[in-house]
Amino acid sequence: MARSLLILNGPNLNLLGTREPETYGSQTLSDIEAICQAAAKSAGFACDFRQSNHEGELVTWIQQARGTADGIVINPAAYSHTSVAIHDALRAVALPTIEVHLSNIHTREPFRHHSFVSPVAIGVICGLGATGYRLAIEALAEKL
Amino acid sequence: MARSLLILNGPNLNLLGTREPETYGSQTLSDIEAICQAAAKSAGFACDFRQSNHEGELVTWIQQARGTADGIVINPAAYSHTSVAIHDALRAVALPTIEVHLSNIHTREPFRHHSFVSPVAIGVICGLGATGYRLAIEALAEKL
Amino acid sequence: MARSLLILNGPNLNLLGTREPETYGSQTLSDIEAICQAAAKSAGFACDFRQSNHEGELVTWIQQARGTADGIVINPAAYSHTSVAIHDALRAVALPTIEVHLSNIHTREPFRHHSFVSPVAIGVICGLGATGYRLAIEALAEKL
Amino acid sequence: MARSLLILNGPNLNLLGTREPETYGSQTLSDIEAICQAAAKSAGFACDFRQSNHEGELVTWIQQARGTADGIVINPAAYSHTSVAIHDALRAVALPTIEVHLSNIHTREPFRHHSFVSPVAIGVICGLGATGYRLAIEALAEKL
Amino acid sequence: MARSLLILNGPNLNLLGTREPETYGSQTLSDIEAICQAAAKSAGFACDFRQSNHEGELVTWIQQARGTADGIVINPAAYSHTSVAIHDALRAVALPTIEVHLSNIHTREPFRHHSFVSPVAIGVICGLGATGYRLAIEALAEKL
Amino acid sequence: MARSLLILNGPNLNLLGTREPETYGSQTLSDIEAICQAAAKSAGFACDFRQSNHEGELVTWIQQARGTADGIVINPAAYSHTSVAIHDALRAVALPTIEVHLSNIHTREPFRHHSFVSPVAIGVICGLGATGYRLAIEALAEKL
Amino acid sequence: MARSLLILNGPNLNLLGTREPETYGSQTLSDIEAICQAAAKSAGFACDFRQSNHEGELVTWIQQARGTADGIVINPAAYSHTSVAIHDALRAVALPTIEVHLSNIHTREPFRHHSFVSPVAIGVICGLGATGYRLAIEALAEKL
Amino acid sequence: MARSLLILNGPNLNLLGTREPETYGSQTLSDIEAICQAAAKSAGFACDFRQSNHEGELVTWIQQARGTADGIVINPAAYSHTSVAIHDALRAVALPTIEVHLSNIHTREPFRHHSFVSPVAIGVICGLGATGYRLAIEALAEKL
Amino acid sequence: MARSLLILNGPNLNLLGTREPETYGSQTLSDIEAICQAAAKSAGFACDFRQSNHEGELVTWIQQARGTADGIVINPAAYSHTSVAIHDALRAVALPTIEVHLSNIHTREPFRHHSFVSPVAIGVICGLGATGYRLAIEALAEKL
Amino acid sequence: MARSLLILNGPNLNLLGTREPETYGSQTLSDIEAICQAAAKSAGFACDFRQSNHEGELVTWIQQARGTADGIVINPAAYSHTSVAIHDALRAVALPTIEVHLSNIHTREPFRHHSFVSPVAIGVICGLGATGYRLAIEALAEKL
Amino acid sequence: MARSLLILNGPNLNLLGTREPETYGSQTLSDIEAICQAAAKSAGFACDFRQSNHEGELVTWIQQARGTADGIVINPAAYSHTSVAIHDALRAVALPTIEVHLSNIHTREPFRHHSFVSPVAIGVICGLGATGYRLAIEALAEKL
Amino acid sequence: MARSLLILNGPNLNLLGTREPETYGSQTLSDIEAICQAAAKSAGFACDFRQSNHEGELVTWIQQARGTADGIVINPAAYSHTSVAIHDALRAVALPTIEVHLSNIHTREPFRHHSFVSPVAIGVICGLGATGYRLAIEALAEKL
Repeated sequence: MARSLLILNGPNLNLLGTREPETYGSQTLSDIEAICQAAAKSAGFACDFRQSNHEGELVTWIQQARGTADGIVINPAAYSHTSVAIHDALRAVALPTIEVHLSNIHTREPFRHHSFVSPVAIGVICGLGATGYRLAIEALAEKL
Repeated sequence: MARSLLILNGPNLNLLGTREPETYGSQTLSDIEAICQAAAKSAGFACDFRQSNHEGELVTWIQQARGTADGIVINPAAYSHTSVAIHDALRAVALPTIEVHLSNIHTREPFRHHSFVSPVAIGVICGLGATGYRLAIEALAEKL
Repeated sequence: MARSLLILNGPNLNLLGTREPETYGSQTLSDIEAICQAAAKSAGFACDFRQSNHEGELVTWIQQARGTADGIVINPAAYSHTSVAIHDALRAVALPTIEVHLSNIHTREPFRHHSFVSPVAIGVICGLGATGYRLAIEALAEKL
Repeated sequence: MARSLLILNGPNLNLLGTREPETYGSQTLSDIEAICQAAAKSAGFACDFRQSNHEGELVTWIQQARGTADGIVINPAAYSHTSVAIHDALRAVALPTIEVHLSNIHTREPFRHHSFVSPVAIGVICGLGATGYRLAIEALAEKL
Repeated sequence: MARSLLILNGPNLNLLGTREPETYGSQTLSDIEAICQAAAKSAGFACDFRQSNHEGELVTWIQQARGTADGIVINPAAYSHTSVAIHDALRAVALPTIEVHLSNIHTREPFRHHSFVSPVAIGVICGLGATGYRLAIEALAEKL
Repeated sequence: MARSLLILNGPNLNLLGTREPETYGSQTLSDIEAICQAAAKSAGFACDFRQSNHEGELVTWIQQARGTADGIVINPAAYSHTSVAIHDALRAVALPTIEVHLSNIHTREPFRHHSFVSPVAIGVICGLGATGYRLAIEALAEKL
Repeated sequence: MARSLLILNGPNLNLLGTREPETYGSQTLSDIEAICQAAAKSAGFACDFRQSNHEGELVTWIQQARGTADGIVINPAAYSHTSVAIHDALRAVALPTIEVHLSNIHTREPFRHHSFVSPVAIGVICGLGATGYRLAIEALAEKL
Repeated sequence: MARSLLILNGPNLNLLGTREPETYGSQTLSDIEAICQAAAKSAGFACDFRQSNHEGELVTWIQQARGTADGIVINPAAYSHTSVAIHDALRAVALPTIEVHLSNIHTREPFRHHSFVSPVAIGVICGLGATGYRLAIEALAEKL
Repeated sequence: MARSLLILNGPNLNLLGTREPETYGSQTLSDIEAICQAAAKSAGFACDFRQSNHEGELVTWIQQARGTADGIVINPAAYSHTSVAIHDALRAVALPTIEVHLSNIHTREPFRHHSFVSPVAIGVICGLGATGYRLAIEALAEKL
Repeated sequence: MARSLLILNGPNLNLLGTREPETYGSQTLSDIEAICQAAAKSAGFACDFRQSNHEGELVTWIQQARGTADGIVINPAAYSHTSVAIHDALRAVALPTIEVHLSNIHTREPFRHHSFVSPVAIGVICGLGATGYRLAIEALAEKL
Repeated sequence: MARSLLILNGPNLNLLGTREPETYGSQTLSDIEAICQAAAKSAGFACDFRQSNHEGELVTWIQQARGTADGIVINPAAYSHTSVAIHDALRAVALPTIEVHLSNIHTREPFRHHSFVSPVAIGVICGLGATGYRLAIEALAEKL
Repeated sequence: MARSLLILNGPNLNLLGTREPETYGSQTLSDIEAICQAAAKSAGFACDFRQSNHEGELVTWIQQARGTADGIVINPAAYSHTSVAIHDALRAVALPTIEVHLSNIHTREPFRHHSFVSPVAIGVICGLGATGYRLAIEALAEKL
């Protein structure tokens, strides 16, 4: 059976490409999905790519990954910095997870320097734009 | 008319029994509901038992308790530590509320040591597993 | 074409008039909507007035304001103090926004003294009750 | 007898219009006084408009407002962040007071995020330029 | 052989019923002892109920519980917040211990929000008055 | 019936006169007792003057003051900075209490700048040596 | 030649008796001056009693005390908490100084718990109302 | 036309030479003025040398420097650590400014380690006594 | 001319493979160099791979990269958390730099959560072991 | 006359050998006393070895050492971290004192990293088990 | 084969005997080496005694101890407080290590109260001068 | 014999003139050396001007200044903020030292606001570019 990845995107990432391009680049979320689908395919993964503005919906999707996905790539966006619920969900499902940020959060406001997701991820990639997603998929592929 | 309790469960508690049993025990949320229904019945309460991963849905359910419930038992899980909205909802409805945590939050990460819910509850029970729910129902029964 | 305002209300504001009147006054959210509609009309604005208990829904509504509204008045209530997601949404849509609080948050608990929304608003009005909404509409009218 | 307002301006506001126009706009303090006199008049108030660079003089003027003014609008400027003496004076005279800041202090240096005046004001308006003064007068008129 | 509980009360609890009844209720420590003896009896425990104003005496009593008691209920009162010695004693004897507070310490001064005892207890019950002792005994009975 | 004062001295004050005279002066505790007895007598008070190195004994003595003393003068010495139990005892007995320190604690180590006793005293006198006791007695005499 | 005391009063103390009597009592500053003049006279001191709302004026008066006064009693009021300039002036003139506060600053807002004056005073008396001034004069008399 | 410097001295500097010579040296403020006049003259500057104990007066003098002076040397003394108003005045006039301290503030109390003036000066010289003023004048001469 | 990468390794990385394999894996630094050389080659880069225990030597190597390398991959190891000098060197040479950590620093001691290097890197990859180096090279290749 | 040492042991050290052997080793307090008596004897000291769970008793014993002992070895255990009274007693008697901890307190909870005793000891030995006592005696012997 | 100790000395210890004798005593580093050689010899150890001002060199020497030494005595001097690299090196080689400080670091500046080395040492000895080295060797001898 | 100055430059200062000219100006380190040699010569000093990227080398050079130099001018650059070793070296040699920074460190990142060197320098000059070195030499000349 094919292996499968869940790729989750947090709040406001649906605006990508139009929102603050100097920070987030000009690629849209669809562009990133295409990159992910290609990378997943070449790594032999099916890939379920989603976005939500709701913390609770992201929690639910993570829970549902148990039994349906072999790994998670998550860009929690704003919820990185405030969501204990997503932290708990990831810890509960205990799937290999890589956290991705498009921008380098360490060059931004102090409240973006801490992520509740990082301690429950196996690794973190930030500042590399859409490429970060692709690298995360490669890394998971190697891991699994 | 029968008195009624609202019993609320926060994010990820639907995973109970399967998630980190060394921290949360092996009882499922259904097991806990059964314990609560029994305790409520023996105390002469109807009991409405719910779980949600959505902060907003928990807020709405608390609001709806006005006029329909005589007391609240809440295990806010991750939202204990981050939700001013639940704090405000509980303060607004002003029903006697007891906060319950399955695990002893004081032996865990520092970010779990503070709860926004505690200052608007009449009491807090933590670390006693599913028994904590039963004791909270007993205490509310005595109070009401 | 008529100019348009989006007026957003955060969690628990649907309880206004019944909840803690010594803090929030006795006007209901409908009373405030009427005040806003009148003020908007006299300033030549159409006015879309909404309330949600869901952080994600508020985020989505802010996103949708791009292209449909000329400015935003937002009372983020509890989410003022905890939501980076609303901060990001407001920054992304880059519409002139005024933050309103019914009560003077500086006389309340320390956790209400900081707002994630203030740095992405053009201005903040607090402590003036429903009048604060009307003044915010006037100020936006003057700005636009 | 006509009602009366005291409008106080703190240090360096006499430089308005020439000083850092990108932060404070190009209106002079005389322009703002004209706006205030007009707004006060249309609200049925006499209006005493003053500026001082001296903390002690501002304290004395606030003290003298007892018996001569019905409300205070104050832009404490730099003294917002350092003056317990102005805080004490306002608390002592116990007149309805609105604090105004021309710029949005929450987008500036951290030491400008806290104001000793806010806890003794009924409300705060910031970031709306000279319009903020006019709105404060309207709000006081409504209150009184 | 009958199982046995040690129930310890910290400083000033001997004043109960006369001291600050709005915070601690009107029951005396004898009333609470009666409640505890009854609850212990019905749970099949012998119950040794003590109070001391001396940190060192509480430490000694905890030490002596090794071999003589099967569990401990402790209301450390003021020493909750300052005693590493009691923390160490409880950790050393390693008996199942439940910490009880009559009032909800989370609604009181910040220095009461932290307890050195909580990390070495299996659970904590606060805010439920004398009922808290009874519930603690029930929970220990269930545990043992 | 004669009015009565309890004068309490905390740990190490029995060493006065021999210990660090550059900080505490050369008077012994007996000298201070003589000063207190004289001052109390001239103010029409009986005076019970005690010293203990035990926090618990000081707590007990404060408790016993209810019904036997009309006011308390306390130099809590080291326990000023660490004892919530003495704070609680003083709050429970609710007798007018003045806190005295021989040295000026504000010129010493930072851990001596905070006193748990000050918030439950009506006043504090520090830095005036044995004279501080006499002034405290005078002040209580005036108060009672 | 007669010995002389300088008694200084900081901002807003000229309002005493009318301002917040529940905190500061009903005595006016004239009442306190009368108490001080009497106490000074009986201790053989001339007494120069002043009040200012200006930090700079208080600094100047302290400077002028060199050569004209033998000791200082100062109630710095709000400037206690913010004035390094008064601290420096007192340190420079190096006259025996006692700091007085009418209210117990330790039961008030946290920003009133620290005084820049205390480290350069020989002693501090707070919470004893006008009596505190009298006791300070007595203590200085004894010292000098 | 001759270039001109404003040299400002903050509170208590009028006491120089008599005050704490181990910290500030034995030169009087007149001695320093003479040094400055000589240095200014040799650099081709007129030199206006002033001292005030009033924060507001220093603010006003800074404001008046616009159009009359080409640069500012300021020893803000105690106001370095507390005055946002002087910070704002210096930023508003935007003249090249050098901050001078006679003593090395980094070897003194922690509250002297931060200066509100430093961020609006082009440079800071401390610890070099009166020589610091002369060097500041040289540096401004080179800059202008 | 071939493009070139500088790959720098900080203190103790020469011990890799033998040191704490549960944290750092069993690959040696030579293994990692081989992975890097392969990845660089396939991306069309020459690759200069170095390790030093000396902060100053790392600084010097970074300086020398100007003109000789097109990008930098750096695993600063312990110096991440303490070296402003490396931060300054990277900022000075202004070459595209990616920071790599073998382990997930966010699951380790708090002093490892902050890196002085991150704010001057374009991106950060942590927790992915030797794969992180390869991904960093890929990302730089894409960038250049 | 023989020189004499006082060796003091704080709370819970009477449990040694049975309590948490992985942290404190398997030696009992009697074993340690034997080691100390031997070491003292060979260094020509009489040795008074005591243990108490009471802070006040430890304070009293330290006070009594004046005139009877030539040096102190103290393992204050839990009171290291909370007792200003023991700090004051040691400072008052001014005997050469060495602080000993069986375990390495720097590898344990943060609240064990600070000791009030260290600043009044001449030296500190931790982490070396019972050997630490012996070394402390040797060091005192060399010192005296 | 003879057992061997590595004894490492950090920056500025080469100045011993000439540098601040009131803090560090009058013994030179050669004197200390002689003491160590004697103590090592009598304990049956060979002893390699070194000093460096370079953090990187100390790191390298620690690394080289693997396989050549059986234990380490280290006085990291200034690097105690700043070097994560030395911490990592010691953790990597995992040899029994004792940290020594000549002076009592707890009576000195706050930045000397924390050591990065302590958590990776088995024990710490401070304040006992050169004797501390000898005691550390004895303790290691006993351990090995 | 001629007097001599040691002028030390910390890490990355060898890049001056090419590195971030908007922060550090366009003068190279050779330009600054020329300025220093000229200033030293005219003040009658020989001048030894050095730069190193190694903390340990700077420490060694400072040590060697004892007996060979009469004063030190040091621009510690990045090591200002992190090096206790340089602090210790300067304190040990006890030569008059002036700290220089080219840029105004108070307008830069918070981690640059604190210098470990300042407390052991007699004075500090920052923000005046290469002129700062010249002024430091003048000041030392005057001092020596």
